[in-house]
Amino acid sequence: MSGPAPVGPAPTLYVCVTCRAEGSDPEERPGARLYRELAQAVARRGDDLRVEAVECLSVCKRPCTVAVAAPGRWTYVYGDLDPESSAETVLDGVGLYARAPEGIVPWRERPQAFRKGVVARIPPLPIRAARAES
Amino acid sequence: MSGPAPVGPAPTLYVCVTCRAEGSDPEERPGARLYRELAQAVARRGDDLRVEAVECLSVCKRPCTVAVAAPGRWTYVYGDLDPESSAETVLDGVGLYARAPEGIVPWRERPQAFRKGVVARIPPLPIRAARAES
Repeated sequence: MSGPAPVGPAPTLYVCVTCRAEGSDPEERPGARLYRELAQAVARRGDDLRVEAVECLSVCKRPCTVAVAAPGRWTYVYGDLDPESSAETVLDGVGLYARAPEGIVPWRERPQAFRKGVVARIPPLPIRAARAES
Repeated sequence: MSGPAPVGPAPTLYVCVTCRAEGSDPEERPGARLYRELAQAVARRGDDLRVEAVECLSVCKRPCTVAVAAPGRWTYVYGDLDPESSAETVLDGVGLYARAPEGIVPWRERPQAFRKGVVARIPPLPIRAARAES
Protein backbone atom coordinates (compact mmCIF):
# COMPACT_ATOMS: atom_id res chain seq x y z
CA MET A 1 0.00 0.00 0.00
CA SER A 2 1.36 3.44 -0.86
CA GLY A 3 1.02 6.67 1.08
CA PRO A 4 2.37 7.73 4.46
CA ALA A 5 3.60 5.19 7.02
CA PRO A 6 1.24 3.93 9.72
CA VAL A 7 1.03 6.14 12.80
CA GLY A 8 1.21 4.69 16.33
CA PRO A 9 0.35 1.18 17.56
CA ALA A 10 -1.15 -1.30 15.08
CA PRO A 11 -4.95 -1.32 14.92
CA THR A 12 -7.10 -4.19 16.12
CA LEU A 13 -9.77 -5.46 13.75
CA TYR A 14 -12.63 -7.16 15.58
CA VAL A 15 -14.69 -9.56 13.49
CA CYS A 16 -18.06 -10.82 14.66
CA VAL A 17 -17.96 -14.59 14.15
CA THR A 18 -21.56 -15.12 15.24
CA CYS A 19 -23.07 -12.96 12.48
CA ARG A 20 -25.53 -14.93 10.38
CA ALA A 21 -27.95 -14.15 7.59
CA GLU A 22 -31.23 -15.62 6.46
CA GLY A 23 -30.62 -18.76 4.46
CA SER A 24 -26.92 -18.77 5.26
CA ASP A 25 -24.71 -21.86 5.31
CA PRO A 26 -25.52 -23.82 8.48
CA GLU A 27 -22.05 -25.37 8.45
CA GLU A 28 -20.17 -22.09 8.73
CA ARG A 29 -21.67 -18.81 9.88
CA PRO A 30 -21.03 -15.90 7.52
CA GLY A 31 -19.21 -14.07 10.32
CA ALA A 32 -16.87 -17.03 10.84
CA ARG A 33 -16.28 -17.14 7.09
CA LEU A 34 -15.40 -13.43 7.01
CA TYR A 35 -13.02 -13.92 9.93
CA ARG A 36 -11.29 -16.76 8.10
CA GLU A 37 -11.00 -14.72 4.89
CA LEU A 38 -9.59 -11.75 6.79
CA ALA A 39 -7.07 -13.80 8.77
CA GLN A 40 -5.85 -15.45 5.57
CA ALA A 41 -5.63 -12.15 3.71
CA VAL A 42 -3.66 -10.52 6.53
CA ALA A 43 -1.19 -13.41 6.52
CA ARG A 44 -0.86 -13.14 2.75
CA ARG A 45 -0.47 -9.35 2.67
CA GLY A 46 1.63 -9.05 5.82
CA ASP A 47 -0.45 -6.13 7.09
CA ASP A 48 0.44 -4.84 10.54
CA LEU A 49 -2.77 -5.35 12.45
CA ARG A 50 -4.31 -7.75 14.92
CA VAL A 51 -7.44 -9.65 13.82
CA GLU A 52 -9.66 -10.82 16.68
CA ALA A 53 -12.75 -12.99 16.58
CA VAL A 54 -15.59 -11.62 18.72
CA GLU A 55 -18.78 -13.28 19.88
CA CYS A 56 -21.31 -10.66 18.79
CA LEU A 57 -20.78 -6.96 18.21
CA SER A 58 -24.55 -6.37 18.75
CA VAL A 59 -25.14 -5.31 15.13
CA CYS A 60 -27.19 -8.44 14.43
CA LYS A 61 -29.45 -6.76 11.85
CA ARG A 62 -26.58 -5.80 9.54
CA PRO A 63 -24.33 -8.86 9.06
CA CYS A 64 -21.44 -9.24 8.55
CA THR A 65 -19.87 -6.83 10.98
CA VAL A 66 -16.41 -5.64 11.96
CA ALA A 67 -14.95 -2.91 14.19
CA VAL A 68 -11.53 -1.29 14.00
CA ALA A 69 -9.84 0.41 16.94
CA ALA A 70 -6.42 1.62 18.07
CA PRO A 71 -5.15 3.69 20.99
CA GLY A 72 -5.57 7.40 20.31
CA ARG A 73 -7.83 6.78 17.31
CA TRP A 74 -11.54 6.81 16.65
CA THR A 75 -13.23 3.40 16.67
CA TYR A 76 -15.35 2.57 13.61
CA VAL A 77 -18.02 -0.12 13.28
CA TYR A 78 -19.04 -1.40 9.84
CA GLY A 79 -21.85 -3.73 8.80
CA ASP A 80 -23.43 -5.14 5.63
CA LEU A 81 -20.13 -6.78 4.62
CA ASP A 82 -20.07 -9.69 2.19
CA PRO A 83 -18.15 -12.53 3.85
CA GLU A 84 -16.83 -13.92 0.59
CA SER A 85 -15.70 -10.81 -1.23
CA SER A 86 -14.96 -8.00 1.22
CA ALA A 87 -11.72 -9.04 2.96
CA GLU A 88 -9.39 -7.11 0.64
CA THR A 89 -11.61 -4.01 0.75
CA VAL A 90 -11.77 -4.10 4.56
CA LEU A 91 -7.99 -4.41 4.82
CA ASP A 92 -7.45 -1.57 2.35
CA GLY A 93 -9.75 0.58 4.49
CA VAL A 94 -7.94 -0.39 7.68
CA GLY A 95 -4.63 0.46 5.99
CA LEU A 96 -5.91 3.98 5.30
CA TYR A 97 -7.13 4.19 8.90
CA ALA A 98 -3.69 3.23 10.22
CA ARG A 99 -2.13 6.07 8.21
CA ALA A 100 -4.66 8.81 9.00
CA PRO A 101 -4.42 11.18 11.97
CA GLU A 102 -6.71 9.87 14.72
CA GLY A 103 -7.90 7.26 12.22
CA ILE A 104 -10.15 9.74 10.41
CA VAL A 105 -9.93 9.02 6.68
CA PRO A 106 -11.43 11.73 4.41
CA TRP A 107 -14.89 10.62 3.29
CA ARG A 108 -14.09 10.44 -0.40
CA GLU A 109 -11.04 8.24 0.19
CA ARG A 110 -12.97 5.61 2.13
CA PRO A 111 -13.92 2.37 0.40
CA GLN A 112 -17.52 2.36 -0.79
CA ALA A 113 -18.28 -0.53 1.59
CA PHE A 114 -17.18 1.62 4.55
CA ARG A 115 -19.22 4.63 3.41
CA LYS A 116 -22.38 2.61 3.00
CA GLY A 117 -21.79 0.20 5.86
CA VAL A 118 -20.82 2.54 8.66
CA VAL A 119 -22.77 1.65 11.81
CA ALA A 120 -21.11 3.96 14.35
CA ARG A 121 -17.89 5.76 15.26
CA ILE A 122 -16.62 6.53 18.76
CA PRO A 123 -13.91 9.03 19.73
CA PRO A 124 -10.65 7.85 21.30
CA LEU A 125 -10.67 7.78 25.08
CA PRO A 126 -9.12 10.85 26.70
CA ILE A 127 -5.40 10.18 27.19
CA ARG A 128 -5.70 10.72 30.92
CA ALA A 129 -8.34 7.99 31.21
CA ALA A 130 -6.41 5.59 28.99
CA ARG A 131 -3.25 6.09 31.02
CA ALA A 132 -5.11 5.34 34.25
CA GLU A 133 -5.64 1.77 33.07
CA SER A 134 -4.25 -0.77 35.47
CA MET B 1 -27.35 4.00 43.51
CA SER B 2 -26.93 0.74 45.42
CA GLY B 3 -24.77 -2.26 44.54
CA PRO B 4 -21.03 -2.72 44.31
CA ALA B 5 -18.64 0.22 43.97
CA PRO B 6 -17.46 1.33 40.52
CA VAL B 7 -14.46 -0.57 39.17
CA GLY B 8 -11.49 1.24 37.58
CA PRO B 9 -11.34 4.65 35.90
CA ALA B 10 -14.58 6.61 35.46
CA PRO B 11 -16.38 6.01 32.17
CA THR B 12 -16.71 8.61 29.44
CA LEU B 13 -20.19 9.20 28.03
CA TYR B 14 -20.09 10.59 24.50
CA VAL B 15 -23.22 12.42 23.39
CA CYS B 16 -23.86 13.25 19.75
CA VAL B 17 -24.86 16.91 19.71
CA THR B 18 -25.56 16.96 15.97
CA CYS B 19 -28.33 14.34 16.12
CA ARG B 20 -31.56 15.69 14.72
CA ALA B 21 -34.98 14.26 13.89
CA GLU B 22 -37.64 15.09 11.35
CA GLY B 23 -39.63 18.08 12.51
CA SER B 24 -37.33 18.73 15.43
CA ASP B 25 -36.78 22.14 17.03
CA PRO B 26 -34.64 24.24 14.68
CA GLU B 27 -33.40 26.29 17.64
CA GLU B 28 -31.81 23.39 19.48
CA ARG B 29 -30.94 20.04 17.95
CA PRO B 30 -32.30 17.06 19.87
CA GLY B 31 -28.71 15.83 20.39
CA ALA B 32 -27.70 19.15 21.94
CA ARG B 33 -30.78 18.99 24.16
CA LEU B 34 -29.88 15.48 25.32
CA TYR B 35 -26.33 16.62 26.06
CA ARG B 36 -27.66 19.51 28.16
CA GLU B 37 -30.05 17.24 30.05
CA LEU B 38 -27.26 14.73 30.73
CA ALA B 39 -24.73 17.34 31.86
CA GLN B 40 -27.30 18.86 34.24
CA ALA B 41 -28.33 15.45 35.59
CA VAL B 42 -24.71 14.44 36.22
CA ALA B 43 -24.09 17.67 38.12
CA ARG B 44 -27.25 17.09 40.16
CA ARG B 45 -26.54 13.44 40.91
CA GLY B 46 -22.79 13.77 41.38
CA ASP B 47 -22.12 10.70 39.24
CA ASP B 48 -18.47 9.89 38.61
CA LEU B 49 -18.28 10.09 34.84
CA ARG B 50 -17.14 12.43 32.11
CA VAL B 51 -19.79 13.69 29.65
CA GLU B 52 -18.40 14.76 26.28
CA ALA B 53 -20.18 16.40 23.36
CA VAL B 54 -19.31 14.80 20.01
CA GLU B 55 -19.93 16.06 16.47
CA CYS B 56 -21.60 12.96 15.01
CA LEU B 57 -21.30 9.34 16.10
CA SER B 58 -22.37 8.22 12.59
CA VAL B 59 -25.65 6.75 13.81
CA CYS B 60 -27.67 9.42 12.02
CA LYS B 61 -30.67 7.16 11.36
CA ARG B 62 -31.31 6.44 15.03
CA PRO B 63 -31.22 9.76 16.95
CA CYS B 64 -30.49 10.56 19.69
CA THR B 65 -27.27 8.66 20.21
CA VAL B 66 -24.70 8.14 22.96
CA ALA B 67 -21.66 5.91 23.51
CA VAL B 68 -20.08 4.84 26.77
CA ALA B 69 -16.45 3.72 27.09
CA ALA B 70 -13.78 3.20 29.72
CA PRO B 71 -10.29 1.65 29.71
CA GLY B 72 -10.50 -2.13 30.04
CA ARG B 73 -14.25 -2.16 29.33
CA TRP B 74 -16.45 -2.84 26.35
CA THR B 75 -17.71 0.22 24.51
CA TYR B 76 -21.48 0.41 23.94
CA VAL B 77 -23.36 2.60 21.47
CA TYR B 78 -27.05 3.36 22.01
CA GLY B 79 -29.56 5.10 19.77
CA ASP B 80 -33.29 5.92 19.68
CA LEU B 81 -33.01 7.96 22.89
CA ASP B 82 -35.60 10.59 23.76
CA PRO B 83 -33.74 13.85 24.43
CA GLU B 84 -36.26 15.10 26.93
CA SER B 85 -36.88 12.05 29.06
CA SER B 86 -33.96 9.65 28.89
CA ALA B 87 -31.16 11.36 30.85
CA GLU B 88 -31.89 9.60 34.15
CA THR B 89 -32.27 6.23 32.46
CA VAL B 90 -28.99 6.65 30.58
CA LEU B 91 -27.14 7.58 33.77
CA ASP B 92 -28.65 4.64 35.64
CA GLY B 93 -27.43 2.37 32.85
CA VAL B 94 -23.96 3.92 32.89
CA GLY B 95 -23.88 3.44 36.68
CA LEU B 96 -24.48 -0.29 36.22
CA TYR B 97 -21.80 -0.33 33.50
CA ALA B 98 -19.28 1.28 35.86
CA ARG B 99 -19.92 -1.45 38.42
CA ALA B 100 -19.90 -4.48 36.12
CA PRO B 101 -16.78 -6.50 35.21
CA GLU B 102 -15.57 -5.28 31.80
CA GLY B 103 -18.73 -3.15 31.62
CA ILE B 104 -20.90 -6.12 30.70
CA VAL B 105 -24.22 -5.75 32.53
CA PRO B 106 -26.45 -8.87 32.50
CA TRP B 107 -29.15 -8.43 29.84
CA ARG B 108 -32.10 -8.49 32.21
CA GLU B 109 -30.59 -5.79 34.42
CA ARG B 110 -30.11 -3.32 31.58
CA PRO B 111 -32.58 -0.44 31.20
CA GLN B 112 -35.21 -1.13 28.55
CA ALA B 113 -33.89 1.83 26.52
CA PHE B 114 -30.46 0.16 26.36
CA ARG B 115 -31.89 -3.23 25.38
CA LYS B 116 -33.95 -1.78 22.56
CA GLY B 117 -31.55 0.97 21.55
CA VAL B 118 -28.26 -0.92 21.34
CA VAL B 119 -26.46 -0.05 18.12
CA ALA B 120 -23.13 -1.81 18.65
CA ARG B 121 -20.63 -2.98 21.24
CA ILE B 122 -16.85 -3.20 20.86
CA PRO B 123 -14.39 -5.11 23.05
CA PRO B 124 -11.77 -3.28 25.11
CA LEU B 125 -8.43 -2.86 23.37
CA PRO B 126 -5.83 -5.44 24.34
CA ILE B 127 -3.93 -4.13 27.35
CA ARG B 128 -0.62 -4.30 25.49
CA ALA B 129 -1.96 -2.03 22.73
CA ALA B 130 -3.52 0.41 25.19
CA ARG B 131 -0.27 0.67 27.15
CA ALA B 132 1.66 1.44 23.98
CA GLU B 133 -0.21 4.73 23.67
CA SER B 134 2.10 7.72 23.62
